[in-house]
Amino acid sequence: MDKRGEAGFPDAGVTGCRPGKRNKDGCKDEKDGHHGKEKKREEVMAVHVCLICSSVVGAGRRLRGELRSRAMSSSTNSTVLAESVATGSSGDVELLPFVNDKHGGVIIEMTAPMDPQLFSASLKASLSKWREQGIRGVWIKLPISLANLIQYAVEEGFWYHHAEETYLMLAYWLPATTHTLPVNATHRVGVGAFVMNDKREVLAVQEKSGVLRGLGVWKFPTGVVEPGEDINLGAVREVKEETGIDTEFVEVLAFRQSHKAFFDKSDLFFVCILRPLSFDITKQDSEIEAAQWMPVEEFAAQPFVQKHELVKYILEVGLAKVDKDYAGFSPILIKSAFTDKKSFFYMNRRDLDKASESSSTQKKTEKPLFMEKL
Amino acid sequence: MDKRGEAGFPDAGVTGCRPGKRNKDGCKDEKDGHHGKEKKREEVMAVHVCLICSSVVGAGRRLRGELRSRAMSSSTNSTVLAESVATGSSGDVELLPFVNDKHGGVIIEMTAPMDPQLFSASLKASLSKWREQGIRGVWIKLPISLANLIQYAVEEGFWYHHAEETYLMLAYWLPATTHTLPVNATHRVGVGAFVMNDKREVLAVQEKSGVLRGLGVWKFPTGVVEPGEDINLGAVREVKEETGIDTEFVEVLAFRQSHKAFFDKSDLFFVCILRPLSFDITKQDSEIEAAQWMPVEEFAAQPFVQKHELVKYILEVGLAKVDKDYAGFSPILIKSAFTDKKSFFYMNRRDLDKASESSSTQKKTEKPLFMEKL
Repeated sequence: MDKRGEAGFPDAGVTGCRPGKRNKDGCKDEKDGHHGKEKKREEVMAVHVCLICSSVVGAGRRLRGELRSRAMSSSTNSTVLAESVATGSSGDVELLPFVNDKHGGVIIEMTAPMDPQLFSASLKASLSKWREQGIRGVWIKLPISLANLIQYAVEEGFWYHHAEETYLMLAYWLPATTHTLPVNATHRVGVGAFVMNDKREVLAVQEKSGVLRGLGVWKFPTGVVEPGEDINLGAVREVKEETGIDTEFVEVLAFRQSHKAFFDKSDLFFVCILRPLSFDITKQDSEIEAAQWMPVEEFAAQPFVQKHELVKYILEVGLAKVDKDYAGFSPILIKSAFTDKKSFFYMNRRDLDKASESSSTQKKTEKPLFMEKL
Repeated sequence: MDKRGEAGFPDAGVTGCRPGKRNKDGCKDEKDGHHGKEKKREEVMAVHVCLICSSVVGAGRRLRGELRSRAMSSSTNSTVLAESVATGSSGDVELLPFVNDKHGGVIIEMTAPMDPQLFSASLKASLSKWREQGIRGVWIKLPISLANLIQYAVEEGFWYHHAEETYLMLAYWLPATTHTLPVNATHRVGVGAFVMNDKREVLAVQEKSGVLRGLGVWKFPTGVVEPGEDINLGAVREVKEETGIDTEFVEVLAFRQSHKAFFDKSDLFFVCILRPLSFDITKQDSEIEAAQWMPVEEFAAQPFVQKHELVKYILEVGLAKVDKDYAGFSPILIKSAFTDKKSFFYMNRRDLDKASESSSTQKKTEKPLFMEKL
């Protein structure tokens, strides 16, 4: 239902004077003390509603009259809206439903459609109230079905915090200080798998899409971990999906951080070594052109690999693990101090175990070894 | 300017029949061969514009008449819009400006305001054209100033991909297959700093905000890396900001991955060891209650630390590095094969150097050591 059409206010701007440093419009009417200036947003109509006294001011009686006549020619709802605004019964403009967060802020989660003007008025009233109460951060979660309300939040000064497929999260900071709201997620996480059998052959694939397609280049299986997925499980999953090979995660051998990898986001790519548990390849037809166990020297001799520093290092650390005593980081589950959740902690387990086992031969008063580089 | 108001179509729905499997409305009018059914979006008005022949169909002549009369009572622009639609001059509905991406898709970057109905019609026409051309992914980048256009893209089937402070990126997949568009960023990246001086004192802070505030608990300096910032540089920056201490990055000793850390996003926390280059503390007043060099045994004896597995492990790996020969991952800059960009690659440099130096005593035909665990 077009509530906006019923209220007669397509894109009508409703401004209010807002106390505090971050008042965009300012209070310039000294005579009234707190009435701001009218802000015409569209050529249709603009009204100025003072949030302190809720009276309609701005372009004079003509607009107020027009407001009422449009309201009376529409449904009951919009008439109630117009009258609430006009008579200054602040109790009629309800605050938006919210919950408190743990940092002195509030979260509004909209779930049902709402008349945009009612939303706008409620939002203003809510912000005013929360500012008085010393609330700091204000979040609004708008599902994609309520995309029509976004512009009204933006008009109040909200900015975008993040979006997922089905919702947009907007944020606002009430105090006149720099905000301390948490930043958005900045990284995608990828995995690359070094899987070697007992014939010194590595699992290698050719992909159907991407920059290397059609070039006949063999690469290690790689992929992006899914939202909420652990790195070690993601690596095992990617190898299974692309090649049909079952594996056991051993260690993270290295990782690379790159920026502006996609849009303006960053990328963390974890080089993982996995132990094969099966050996018969079934390639993933949708994405993989070909998959094979390839003698590691042949893999290494590819001209592309010779020119690609990252792949050369993957080979180096993989072979150092297989042939020498290279220690990467292996995962253990640890508990959180605050919740029941467990998380994977990756560390050099071999060196930590050695450190625990050996008695300390270094006297505690000596300068620690690594400080000696100073 | 309220183009929508001028055109008289607040929230009017304009639907079109779209060929292909993903046609929401379907083409059910066999007589015409390709005219879909009218879809009433609002109680105001709905018109059905066939994108193949561009004629106005649906509720019959009354609507077409209403369309023209509203158009004639409005500005020239909307009259042109109505006539373009009504006369079937498909050349009058321009495609939206776009660029090709590298994966067979297109990116529309809107920069200037646009009449929402014109946007909607152009978007439909563009999608139709691109579908014919075999285009796959379609991206629309909408700046926050054009938040009023979001709902029209959503009506065409676009979903949210990601948002930053000043824009929303929407995505759409034209083929009737599962999309292969890149996922959104999923992780925030944090750093924790183990900094020890030559008196076996660690740098410790008490924060003014967060879950530990007011509890008198001493913690390691921690923080979140900024968008586009490298982990090693972020760790040095955080220590400098919180305590005034200059440091040199040494290694990543360990890392932890956790999920649903904030909203539904994940977190990668890197435990870093830094070498202090200065020793006089100047705490950051805005965020830090207190900062000091604290005897490591005293730090470790805090009841909170005893109960907090992550902090205990940070202490363990830190002391193993300082006192024993624990090797973490140290960064080197490597080049990309495809661009001039360089990135940091973190690996166990000590073990890799050892592997390179030592001659291989293990015969190449023997089973690799790590395989013996099978």
